[in-house]
Amino acid sequence: MLSAKEFSLRDKFGTYNGMEVVSVAKGTAVARFEVKSQHKNGLGTVHGGALFTLADLAFAAASNCADDMVVSIHAGMSFAKACTEGILTAEARELTRSSKLVNYEAKVCNEAGDIVAIFQGTGYIKNKTAERKS
Amino acid sequence: MLSAKEFSLRDKFGTYNGMEVVSVAKGTAVARFEVKSQHKNGLGTVHGGALFTLADLAFAAASNCADDMVVSIHAGMSFAKACTEGILTAEARELTRSSKLVNYEAKVCNEAGDIVAIFQGTGYIKNKTAERKS
Amino acid sequence: MLSAKEFSLRDKFGTYNGMEVVSVAKGTAVARFEVKSQHKNGLGTVHGGALFTLADLAFAAASNCADDMVVSIHAGMSFAKACTEGILTAEARELTRSSKLVNYEAKVCNEAGDIVAIFQGTGYIKNKTAERKS
Amino acid sequence: MLSAKEFSLRDKFGTYNGMEVVSVAKGTAVARFEVKSQHKNGLGTVHGGALFTLADLAFAAASNCADDMVVSIHAGMSFAKACTEGILTAEARELTRSSKLVNYEAKVCNEAGDIVAIFQGTGYIKNKTAERKS
Repeated sequence: MLSAKEFSLRDKFGTYNGMEVVSVAKGTAVARFEVKSQHKNGLGTVHGGALFTLADLAFAAASNCADDMVVSIHAGMSFAKACTEGILTAEARELTRSSKLVNYEAKVCNEAGDIVAIFQGTGYIKNKTAERKS
Repeated sequence: MLSAKEFSLRDKFGTYNGMEVVSVAKGTAVARFEVKSQHKNGLGTVHGGALFTLADLAFAAASNCADDMVVSIHAGMSFAKACTEGILTAEARELTRSSKLVNYEAKVCNEAGDIVAIFQGTGYIKNKTAERKS
Repeated sequence: MLSAKEFSLRDKFGTYNGMEVVSVAKGTAVARFEVKSQHKNGLGTVHGGALFTLADLAFAAASNCADDMVVSIHAGMSFAKACTEGILTAEARELTRSSKLVNYEAKVCNEAGDIVAIFQGTGYIKNKTAERKS
Repeated sequence: MLSAKEFSLRDKFGTYNGMEVVSVAKGTAVARFEVKSQHKNGLGTVHGGALFTLADLAFAAASNCADDMVVSIHAGMSFAKACTEGILTAEARELTRSSKLVNYEAKVCNEAGDIVAIFQGTGYIKNKTAERKS
């Protein structure tokens, strides 16, 4: 099982965008980033793509932390609150797991604890014996 | 109405990640990026967050190109094909528009024309007379 | 505010399909039905449309219980477990509410408490002073 | 391959609610129903569950028409237009198919051809050699 730090480093897109996985355990993980100018959209608020990426990163860290390799097959996000600064945190949590499929939810919150975005992800367990070498 | 180039430049998150809007017209827009190492996830394929961002950028460019300011309230993405290189293109297209809501679809394709991901976005028309000054 | 029974009776599609709202409170509601032959799909399991309807009914009961009239603008459902009999229950819960939009989640469970399906709904608050006369 | 009529008859929930599959071919199918009082929600418009069921029925007919047995794992619907009468038609169309997963879209339209709702469904190909005996 990869540590939070190891998982973060492997995820190039998250790293490039200043995101890191801060904790990971069976069926749950937390990721975060500090909002900077580069995370904004044309309206001056945090880009939906940045919020989605953060939640997807937490989903991947949580669902891949065991022996399974999970690939996302569908994800949806509802955007509840525009935000412009501070640290945003996504906490992913497993809702169901069968032999082939997992369902996760993740909530992205601001520092005040308000829900900024709600993520729902479905993953396909591709290979239970996949070796992931460093 | 903003040109494709103007829209691209305003979108900091897209620009930071090497994405650009290449064409925009009433109810449709095209955005693209060339896959680089920084766009990958821990499995070595293009990150779902990058695919989502590209489609969301095309959606924003297409839906905001008139006098309306549209904010995304929900978006979903199905991931159909893993990819590791080349230029990815998202084309957004308006399906419905009422006085308050728009629905768009966008398909992300690789250079061979295969569908890599399917995006569906719902936006809220926030302010029909919003002034967006440069 | 409508009682659970009043809300059930107004919802013709739910009633016609043997569904009822069993409790309703601010931001939450529970609906249920007993699986019968008429709820099945061509594979002999409960139809996705029946599961969706149940969750949507709970969502509507919970979100409309105050002075607001809420119309659904997007909803997604993940199907986690096929089922063929027993009583299915959906519990809807409000996650966010702004002046114009609400986000709800609902989980459909079987009698053993297993999650059968996961629903996420976004609603638009159409008219805060809508009068809904009996 | 099942005919449209055979498929309709197997789907008890669709049949019970007055819905029928009117055509089916590889990767596409059309289903419809005439709006009656029993299809309405508490606001007097067609229930989201009825619209979802119609689209899901078309999705199932189209995706199961070959040798594959496809089970829905996620579906989303955007509700674009309230309607109260007439014949509603859903046309499902395959967007992608891999060895294990399919992605479909379906649009529900009224008699004037306006889009009433937009459906996106992801299915899992459970058993390529499943025998489905009459």
